[in-house]
Amino acid sequence: MLICKVLKPLVSTNRIADFQHKHLQVVLDGSTQKVAVDAVGAIPGDWVICVGSSAAREAAGSKSYPSDLTIVGIIDHWDPDAAKEMAAGNPAANPAKPPGGAG
Amino acid sequence: MLICKVLKPLVSTNRIADFQHKHLQVVLDGSTQKVAVDAVGAIPGDWVICVGSSAAREAAGSKSYPSDLTIVGIIDHWDPDAAKEMAAGNPAANPAKPPGGAG
Amino acid sequence: MLICKVLKPLVSTNRIADFQHKHLQVVLDGSTQKVAVDAVGAIPGDWVICVGSSAAREAAGSKSYPSDLTIVGIIDHWDPDAAKEMAAGNPAANPAKPPGGAG
Amino acid sequence: MLICKVLKPLVSTNRIADFQHKHLQVVLDGSTQKVAVDAVGAIPGDWVICVGSSAAREAAGSKSYPSDLTIVGIIDHWDPDAAKEMAAGNPAANPAKPPGGAG
Amino acid sequence: MLICKVLKPLVSTNRIADFQHKHLQVVLDGSTQKVAVDAVGAIPGDWVICVGSSAAREAAGSKSYPSDLTIVGIIDHWDPDAAKEMAAGNPAANPAKPPGGAG
Repeated sequence: MLICKVLKPLVSTNRIADFQHKHLQVVLDGSTQKVAVDAVGAIPGDWVICVGSSAAREAAGSKSYPSDLTIVGIIDHWDPDAAKEMAAGNPAANPAKPPGGAG
Repeated sequence: MLICKVLKPLVSTNRIADFQHKHLQVVLDGSTQKVAVDAVGAIPGDWVICVGSSAAREAAGSKSYPSDLTIVGIIDHWDPDAAKEMAAGNPAANPAKPPGGAG
Repeated sequence: MLICKVLKPLVSTNRIADFQHKHLQVVLDGSTQKVAVDAVGAIPGDWVICVGSSAAREAAGSKSYPSDLTIVGIIDHWDPDAAKEMAAGNPAANPAKPPGGAG
Repeated sequence: MLICKVLKPLVSTNRIADFQHKHLQVVLDGSTQKVAVDAVGAIPGDWVICVGSSAAREAAGSKSYPSDLTIVGIIDHWDPDAAKEMAAGNPAANPAKPPGGAG
Repeated sequence: MLICKVLKPLVSTNRIADFQHKHLQVVLDGSTQKVAVDAVGAIPGDWVICVGSSAAREAAGSKSYPSDLTIVGIIDHWDPDAAKEMAAGNPAANPAKPPGGAG
């Protein structure tokens, strides 16, 4: 699943009927903007988990829903700067092992 | 789903029978040109939502249609320049929170 | 779907039985070489439409055929240089709106 | 499948019911952080095999589980530096053919 | 399908039961190392065809096998340097049209 930031709702009046009235959100995946079906009620600024592939369909509500990217969860706490340091291999930035913490 | 710009129709006379007579459009995904089956009647210049993965098949009309990218909606308003600024983290470019607006 | 150029046939004597005797082509996707099952009889130099994801299986002939990239159509006319200019946003390169043309 | 490093567990209280209570891990795929469902009980620092596409669903426990990335195995020994040298084509870094070894 | 080079077998003792005892190979896809299920008996150094997406499952032996990358064929002859020249558009490197050859 992808870690994305919600930017804003997307309005598309002319769309296929199968999309129904579910909310669409513009999300930021790295530096690329994508559109995700919102299954959890996220708001702009939220860091969310987006599922893709065929799993996005069932996550959006039914096996026949035509989504390839669905917001399936809101991350409780996400620090993008710390995440970048962890990705760069800086162990001091790892919140999974805080001094005296339970992880 | 991807946010793409429609460039032009694509003509392919020699193609598999399963493609039927549905319209194909050349779309721009970032800087890459791809081909999408058009399920909404888009025209060159439109900014559209394209769905991929297995969902593209049903979005094109039936579970057995051989598409991996289908245009499923036309975006009402899309400002690519503002979008770039939002992707770069410039909050002033965020139309989701206009001054005094309801988002 | 991807817009690829056919480079040459690929010979793989030791392959799984499910591949049967269908022709495999080396195609160029941007600057990456991939292998596609040929469902239309393309020849080296042709610009073709390649479908991926689960749709590649049925496009190759049956739901159980193990392909993830299948050539489904030969593009009638493709000018890669004009395509690059269109991707770069040069409207003069857009053949969809020729002066006085019908598109 | 991808070779990823487990960074830390991910907490998402507000998530779709289909996710159940399975553990989610933030994993590092190259320099990109992704979220994977953990099917083997990995801990931060482990190098793991992650499966994507539709196979991620069954790997997570059932055909209807909405995962597109599932940790399916912990790699016994993984030296990321040696791996980089192998990727760069340095045969001396190939542990598959150690002098006098059994491979 | 991808054109990959087999680097070495991968040992993962702690893995999900669905993986059974099939051989896993570390393969090089461009400059990225991935893990593929081996359905043809490849050895390090072989250039192979790897199938992804949902087709990887059936190619690995059954529809429920959790693979997203399966080695489905060994390429008879592959010259990576000539391939790079072909990708760069050098016709002299195209073995599909040798002087006086039949292609």
